[in-house]
Amino acid sequence: MLRSLPHPDEQALGGSERYRAVVAALEEFFDDSGARASAYGPEYVELWRELRRNTTGGKLFRPRMVVAAFDGLDGTHDEPALPWVGAAFELLHTALIVHDDVIDRDFVRRGKPNISGTYRDRARGEGASQRDAEHRGLSAAVVAGDLALFYSYRLIDRSGVGEENRRRLLELMDEALFASAAGELLDLDYSGAIRIPTVDNILSMARLKTAVYSFEVPLKAGAVLAGASDAVVESMGDFGREVGTAYQVVDDLLGVFGDSEETGKSTTSDLREGKRTVLVAHAAGTGLWAQLAPLFGSPDLSEADAQTLRAGLEQSGARDYAEQLLAQHVERAREVLARPHIPESLRERLIPIVDLVLRRGR
Amino acid sequence: MLRSLPHPDEQALGGSERYRAVVAALEEFFDDSGARASAYGPEYVELWRELRRNTTGGKLFRPRMVVAAFDGLDGTHDEPALPWVGAAFELLHTALIVHDDVIDRDFVRRGKPNISGTYRDRARGEGASQRDAEHRGLSAAVVAGDLALFYSYRLIDRSGVGEENRRRLLELMDEALFASAAGELLDLDYSGAIRIPTVDNILSMARLKTAVYSFEVPLKAGAVLAGASDAVVESMGDFGREVGTAYQVVDDLLGVFGDSEETGKSTTSDLREGKRTVLVAHAAGTGLWAQLAPLFGSPDLSEADAQTLRAGLEQSGARDYAEQLLAQHVERAREVLARPHIPESLRERLIPIVDLVLRRGR
Repeated sequence: MLRSLPHPDEQALGGSERYRAVVAALEEFFDDSGARASAYGPEYVELWRELRRNTTGGKLFRPRMVVAAFDGLDGTHDEPALPWVGAAFELLHTALIVHDDVIDRDFVRRGKPNISGTYRDRARGEGASQRDAEHRGLSAAVVAGDLALFYSYRLIDRSGVGEENRRRLLELMDEALFASAAGELLDLDYSGAIRIPTVDNILSMARLKTAVYSFEVPLKAGAVLAGASDAVVESMGDFGREVGTAYQVVDDLLGVFGDSEETGKSTTSDLREGKRTVLVAHAAGTGLWAQLAPLFGSPDLSEADAQTLRAGLEQSGARDYAEQLLAQHVERAREVLARPHIPESLRERLIPIVDLVLRRGR
Repeated sequence: MLRSLPHPDEQALGGSERYRAVVAALEEFFDDSGARASAYGPEYVELWRELRRNTTGGKLFRPRMVVAAFDGLDGTHDEPALPWVGAAFELLHTALIVHDDVIDRDFVRRGKPNISGTYRDRARGEGASQRDAEHRGLSAAVVAGDLALFYSYRLIDRSGVGEENRRRLLELMDEALFASAAGELLDLDYSGAIRIPTVDNILSMARLKTAVYSFEVPLKAGAVLAGASDAVVESMGDFGREVGTAYQVVDDLLGVFGDSEETGKSTTSDLREGKRTVLVAHAAGTGLWAQLAPLFGSPDLSEADAQTLRAGLEQSGARDYAEQLLAQHVERAREVLARPHIPESLRERLIPIVDLVLRRGR
């Protein structure tokens, strides 16, 4: 499952007016699409309503990245296009999570039925068998994800941005989609394989699947919109990659050693599902793994088994290793921001993102 | 399942040079994408190779529609963009059939494994359970369809067409995708429902799901590229709608009363699957239906049962009705071509398409 990203602190990240403009752009897009869908019957209006519910209920993390880079560079040139570009990245996110949930056969997201879940439950209510109802749910989600994907590109195209920036933004969107498809495919390969992939494999997969479209490309898009130099745009990609990697490591750590009450995230399910994490990849290269492997990924893993695995991951040095890895990527992210061509205002705007990732790690 | 369309007769449809340029554009696109994918590992190159195999092996019916309208209007203005626009519509078709196969859980297309089938078979070969292997196949197909969908839009965007036509073509692509998603959703609803939909419902669903993106929009796109007037562009849409509807009725007729040896298409599977066709929709409104309903859609339908159903569809008047409906839409298609603003060259270029649809019906 593609993980939720932390809720950026409004005060720390600022820019709430531009953020509200993204929300307004999404509302306008869904108003228009719903009105248009009504010519095709109530079923289609309903699908669009579900797509809206699954898009606008989130934290809009990716639009916030676009806005943060734009703000930090004191961008004004393509400002009218900014909300639409932000909205486009949120829609891309929706497309990817909706289809990722189809691939993972997940019917719930953040404790609520996702699109597959809503259509499955409705079909059940109409008397369909569980199997048919699930199929119905997944089918509706395939269609909904296609719409979100198509309109993510379309929103940038129609954002009103100048010709040269339009071309560059669409290239960035292309980069994001090309990478996330590669990452999804690698994730499929790794999940299906018996052998545990290396730490590098896992970080590379996670970067492609999530970090490129969640951090790197939205930050670059904000810089492009603000009319930044190529050097600054590239640095935004570098910064996004480091923060995105740090985020992934934090996520892996929290999934095993976190405080469930604080994070709202189970510390057993990663172990029970046999999730390929940095921790596990490191431990698999140590002598201790032979003892841990039989428990790892066991569908009926008990809390005591999970505790054994956690202790094993500590003893093997995997936890220390992951924490060092995290510190390393955070350090690199800060180094990117210290580059001479990064204006102070941008640095100030982006440091809170690093802190946000770190704060989750505590 | 989205049905294959007839193989247009090269001689009847002409324009083989422009057709070859579409093939070359697709080859170039897949060469580039494969080279780009190689930076992401061999798995990704393999997925692109599968996508290529599932795109370039077809009859390129939709690009042929684009080329036919362009040719018939003696278009030259945006000629360099023509192959890319044609390629874009073929890629859209690939996206839609790949995801339609996921929805229908089909692992075979035209007698060969489709993307889901290839990945399923490979996973089986690597020792996965049937269930896991199917899941693996469908997952790869979700990702592949996303890529095809995204790049269908991108190919038009990058076709080098002039700014005004670019905008119009992207609106057309939008119209096609918006309609086909609505049609797919209606198809899901109708397939799941116990009640047989009306003839109008079925024709409307088939138009949205297939005819808009296969006939109407590619013909309009060819006219736009050729610099045609709005009246001609609209007429291309009208013509496409009539031919597309006629095509659907022919398809329904052949699925029950065709000559399997000639069409390569079973005359039992539509009846066994309980496919909602024009024939069935008409028969369901007659007194005979009570006798036919228990057999219709029965998974273990025998050839004798199928014969009973065929006889019932004849007796109920459904076959006659469908043949009249076909004649009506063919007549209307010809009427569109007789409009005064349609140049003779365009009429000559499009009449063979009507004949092609009719020839299938004989």
